[in-house]
Amino acid sequence: LSRNIKLTLAYDGSEFRGWQIQPGLATVQGILAEVIGRVSGQKVLPQGSGRTDAGVHALAQVATFKTESPIPVENFLKVLNDKLPPAIRVTAAEEVSEDFHARHSAKGKTYRYRIFRGTVCSPFLWRYVTHYPFPLNEEAVFRSAEYILGEHDFTSFAAVDPDRTLRDSGLQHQSKFQDDEVLNPKHATNIRTIYESVWEWDGEELIYLVRGNGFLHHMVRNLVGTFLLAGKGTIQPEDIKKILEARDRSAAGATAPANGLYLVSVEY
Amino acid sequence: LSRNIKLTLAYDGSEFRGWQIQPGLATVQGILAEVIGRVSGQKVLPQGSGRTDAGVHALAQVATFKTESPIPVENFLKVLNDKLPPAIRVTAAEEVSEDFHARHSAKGKTYRYRIFRGTVCSPFLWRYVTHYPFPLNEEAVFRSAEYILGEHDFTSFAAVDPDRTLRDSGLQHQSKFQDDEVLNPKHATNIRTIYESVWEWDGEELIYLVRGNGFLHHMVRNLVGTFLLAGKGTIQPEDIKKILEARDRSAAGATAPANGLYLVSVEY
Repeated sequence: LSRNIKLTLAYDGSEFRGWQIQPGLATVQGILAEVIGRVSGQKVLPQGSGRTDAGVHALAQVATFKTESPIPVENFLKVLNDKLPPAIRVTAAEEVSEDFHARHSAKGKTYRYRIFRGTVCSPFLWRYVTHYPFPLNEEAVFRSAEYILGEHDFTSFAAVDPDRTLRDSGLQHQSKFQDDEVLNPKHATNIRTIYESVWEWDGEELIYLVRGNGFLHHMVRNLVGTFLLAGKGTIQPEDIKKILEARDRSAAGATAPANGLYLVSVEY
Repeated sequence: LSRNIKLTLAYDGSEFRGWQIQPGLATVQGILAEVIGRVSGQKVLPQGSGRTDAGVHALAQVATFKTESPIPVENFLKVLNDKLPPAIRVTAAEEVSEDFHARHSAKGKTYRYRIFRGTVCSPFLWRYVTHYPFPLNEEAVFRSAEYILGEHDFTSFAAVDPDRTLRDSGLQHQSKFQDDEVLNPKHATNIRTIYESVWEWDGEELIYLVRGNGFLHHMVRNLVGTFLLAGKGTIQPEDIKKILEARDRSAAGATAPANGLYLVSVEY
């Protein structure tokens, strides 16, 4: 009897070459597949709610896999954590209905981006924040984030991936439109809806929180890189509207570094 | 004109093979020597307040070196941080009198040890705490720490290092009694004075704070390992007295893992 298992995962992205399995590289999906295989005695490829790139962290990534193993689901958590490296933790394991799929069933996601503004970044922090000690008009950064609320075509903030389908070869679930996540088939466009997009101070850190029904590849990092342009005065906060309308990656700012980014949660 | 420079350093010990310079290995002293050499154009070996072992962290290690470089001391901080790996940060740099020496001038030190008691240890935390989720009588741990206050012979808690002098070969300042620290020549014994020795809860963590005029090699980790024996009921808290009197390493508990230990500060 096949069961469908849902795992909630936290990981330190600085230790891995991203989520997606790649031959010969330490990836979260690859290590998880190997450990589940050893534990259950069956070869499986856990499906994530979406990819995270090398260096990107997860507080609650979700992955599903089917298994015929008789291991009680509550034991999966303990057994997997015993065998996984300490930089990947299973924080919850539950049996879900057969039709639940980590990616296809997802209705929304929340990401966080951390920017450390102090002069000297702690040696215990540098893996987990982006250090940006340079002058910045924080108010302009804060205001620029408001313009992405609602439904927009985010082509200007999407990675230009000519090898997008190539990267999907191998064991990964095939999808012509595979990007960071394709929440459901009707998302075969670059239109996404953003429910929340807000910056706040936390001590010496600027924290960006964004929640939406889906995100294109590099979208959060490209948004952050563009908000920083507003903070530097290169653009005005309201220019975000024009950048969205341009539907052109070159209209927006640079991709902010991976190590400040966290997948916070996935909504179903 | 030679100047004496005092650096205050923070580092993530999980990235290095300890403080002491060793050929072909990434050590804090070795990397610092290399970077100071590049910046100042002079070969120097910075002297630390004492060694930290592989995996042990520092919040405020102190190191001194002499230089004829004309670089203003306030620029040293910035230039060194530009060239050091992010896991080592210079948090302060100042010119001190010629006779000040990071190790010989030290009058005391404070260490902290962190034990995470939760079931699942965050992937962002494992490098920085010791995960001990097993049953423990915390009150017994707390009480056992009180018995080391004052002046004692800590032979039972000192590493047995037959190769102690061998490890001092090379560039390191020679000392027959070199251990974690030899604060001044009269410390050529295993007698040390402990001013503060206290455990407290911090969320899901047990935090041990110990301050003394000096610490032998592995002393804090051996103390923690022995306090845990009291927590497990293997010994009674008051047995610490007998273990001190035994002056025998085998009377005490195992060496607790390095990654929970922090050199917090050095007093001069």
